[in-house]
Amino acid sequence: MTELDQLRKRIEEITIEMLSLLKTRIEIAEEIGKIKNQQGMSVSNESREDELRELVKKRCQEINFDSNTALKFLNFLLNESVKVQSSESNTHLAIFLKAKELEQQGKKIIHLEVGEPDFQPPASVKQSLTEVYDKGFGKYGPSKGLPEFRAKLVEFANRKFDAKINLENIMVVPGARFGVFLAITTLLDPSDEIIVIEPAWPAYRQCAINAGIKVRSVKTTLENKWEPKIDEISSCVNGNTKMIVLNYPNNPTGKILPKILQKQIVDLAEEHDLYILSDEIYSNYSNDEWNSILSYEYKKAIVTQSFSKSHSMTGYRIGYLISNEKIVEKLAKLQALCLTNVSEPIQYTAMKSLNDDVTNNVKIMNERLTKLGDICNEMKLEFTRPDGAMYVFVRTKNSKNTSQLCEELLDHGLAIAPGIGFGDYNEFFRISACQSVKTLIEGMDILKTRLQM
Amino acid sequence: MTELDQLRKRIEEITIEMLSLLKTRIEIAEEIGKIKNQQGMSVSNESREDELRELVKKRCQEINFDSNTALKFLNFLLNESVKVQSSESNTHLAIFLKAKELEQQGKKIIHLEVGEPDFQPPASVKQSLTEVYDKGFGKYGPSKGLPEFRAKLVEFANRKFDAKINLENIMVVPGARFGVFLAITTLLDPSDEIIVIEPAWPAYRQCAINAGIKVRSVKTTLENKWEPKIDEISSCVNGNTKMIVLNYPNNPTGKILPKILQKQIVDLAEEHDLYILSDEIYSNYSNDEWNSILSYEYKKAIVTQSFSKSHSMTGYRIGYLISNEKIVEKLAKLQALCLTNVSEPIQYTAMKSLNDDVTNNVKIMNERLTKLGDICNEMKLEFTRPDGAMYVFVRTKNSKNTSQLCEELLDHGLAIAPGIGFGDYNEFFRISACQSVKTLIEGMDILKTRLQM
Repeated sequence: MTELDQLRKRIEEITIEMLSLLKTRIEIAEEIGKIKNQQGMSVSNESREDELRELVKKRCQEINFDSNTALKFLNFLLNESVKVQSSESNTHLAIFLKAKELEQQGKKIIHLEVGEPDFQPPASVKQSLTEVYDKGFGKYGPSKGLPEFRAKLVEFANRKFDAKINLENIMVVPGARFGVFLAITTLLDPSDEIIVIEPAWPAYRQCAINAGIKVRSVKTTLENKWEPKIDEISSCVNGNTKMIVLNYPNNPTGKILPKILQKQIVDLAEEHDLYILSDEIYSNYSNDEWNSILSYEYKKAIVTQSFSKSHSMTGYRIGYLISNEKIVEKLAKLQALCLTNVSEPIQYTAMKSLNDDVTNNVKIMNERLTKLGDICNEMKLEFTRPDGAMYVFVRTKNSKNTSQLCEELLDHGLAIAPGIGFGDYNEFFRISACQSVKTLIEGMDILKTRLQM
Repeated sequence: MTELDQLRKRIEEITIEMLSLLKTRIEIAEEIGKIKNQQGMSVSNESREDELRELVKKRCQEINFDSNTALKFLNFLLNESVKVQSSESNTHLAIFLKAKELEQQGKKIIHLEVGEPDFQPPASVKQSLTEVYDKGFGKYGPSKGLPEFRAKLVEFANRKFDAKINLENIMVVPGARFGVFLAITTLLDPSDEIIVIEPAWPAYRQCAINAGIKVRSVKTTLENKWEPKIDEISSCVNGNTKMIVLNYPNNPTGKILPKILQKQIVDLAEEHDLYILSDEIYSNYSNDEWNSILSYEYKKAIVTQSFSKSHSMTGYRIGYLISNEKIVEKLAKLQALCLTNVSEPIQYTAMKSLNDDVTNNVKIMNERLTKLGDICNEMKLEFTRPDGAMYVFVRTKNSKNTSQLCEELLDHGLAIAPGIGFGDYNEFFRISACQSVKTLIEGMDILKTRLQM
């Protein structure tokens, strides 16, 4: 027998041995399931799984074995179904799609549920769409985006976000949502953990769940003006924590973090070697306090940006992502695998509109938010005035379950977003200021009538 | 200690025991890798893996253990790195990107590596890009696509592909590649198996590997005119097999399957409850023999289609996917999660050009393929005349390693695609007929000179 044959034989033996153990393990797990069933206990048990995880990690140290591989293996054993398709029945997107369906049936709906400004995209967009065919932008290209577009984005980011980035730090994505998906899916492994500060845009959690990643949420409150405490965040960090998600100006609350707290979070991330995924798509709609995470030059930061809100190009699906070269390289690989590249005519259009003056959009949005806040005050709804973004996130004393309220409101021609979609905020709902003041007033009148019933 | 506690304790012990075995197993595997490396042997070894599989199945019978679970477990062990980022250094895409870089440095390159027709998109595309801004197509919408676009696609598919589908069977995707990604990622679980008939477009394998899915390849040969035998396919099916990928007209060989064989494959899939992912993006460029999988009304078939080749809209990123309602529903969820929707201006443009007459493209492509075939014959390159698609896949006796040849050709101003990117076809390369006859002749002259050296 050659050495190779001997080693192969040994592999076979170990495999068979593991198989017997697997069989026994499954049988015991079934037994436990039965007992739990008899005692009326829930079958899944997160704290038990955490204990087992800790045990495995400890054992890995003792036997000097890579804990990543071990935890992946454990994950396989726990059979955590990687493909949990989270139901989106209560998100703003679900309400939006229902509203669209009702409209197709002829019903009139006021859309205060969706973060879609009613502004036209800049006039340059129309112009560039007209010329893109003859210019020949419509071919396969690098997955990171058109080089000339990326160069312009670098210049823009360095000027606007106090960043110091180069071409290799930037990639074009089909909307910031795809950037979030790429970052979470590519950088994290199943059984890793991610910290999300809630209330939050639901996609962070959904992308994590889709990739078999565990979400730890930090719940902020209206009473604390939606500000997380650094201790609340740090107490969520454990050996499996790999990423913290920030989104300021925040959707849905409009909160902007004080700079001191932002710095503390960056320090915490650095200390524990965590990625910071900072979704900054509302930066354009913010007061002077706003500061990009890019200003810290933190090597594990990933910033997502978009033309959707600033340029009112929601349905064009175009944004970009900024990070260090190695991270961009990784993310671009998955983008190449599933998309080849972002639509070139759309890239060209966004490139041409990048430096357009969109301050008037900001001015109008501010006026609307002020008006919306005034109406909410009149209606005795509880909220804090937003520091930025395009929403108010309000609590009503008249409904313990705003999901039901939102469904009912649809019947009365108003779409707003239930709080549960942003975390466990059942008494809250989000109102978007993306419509004219006239429409806002009309919508809020419907809400007033329903809440008084 | 309660009974529950005792059982839990036992689970812990078994888990730790398995962990030690896993560690030893990995160490031995590394040792084997080293020895193989020293002896110049290839690291992966499918027949060895099959032996192990047989051993496991046998053992399962002996200990009365579910072989599906056991084989999944084995695949996990064999596929340890779930996230193997397959290096794309040898694919046509890698050559294309290198060629693009050289061009940016001022070098002239003839592009016979990429499946990108040099035709302009239909004139209607220019027209619709001009009007899309004012028409207001640029908003968030349903993840499955614009309802009016989908309705037109239904009518088109039923007419062109002998299908009998309805609105709920179709969704718009940003390129067929994304459809392939969605289908493989959503429908299969890690350690499931997928059958790919090679030579094949590399994305099928890459999407599978990215999702931790095991690829079984059926190797077809030039000698058999790239036709797989039904027995070769059926011998790859085991309890973990979940999907078979078809791509006819084939990239890179241009093969179209005889209808009898196609029917046998559908029967085989039905018998074993397998998904059929049929990528039919080259159907437009095919002789009369071509028949869509849709004609079988097989409930687990997923068909991908695209505007890239037929309408020469490669960089627009627009295609669609046809399947049964439940599958479409599942896939649309992942698309909503990561993209919200496909770019609306691009959807509008594709919708308007769907029924354009593109037969002239087909005629020109045929003429080019004939000319390319003639040149290959003159050069004594071995190949079969393609039944469709846009390529010839040829073998040269002058090079055992076309990857190196392709790299060298770049320096001489010619880009062609190495065979290894399509599977283990080191003596082959793919030449694309997407350029004018004049350019084809120029490119083939460069190749001729290099092969004679």
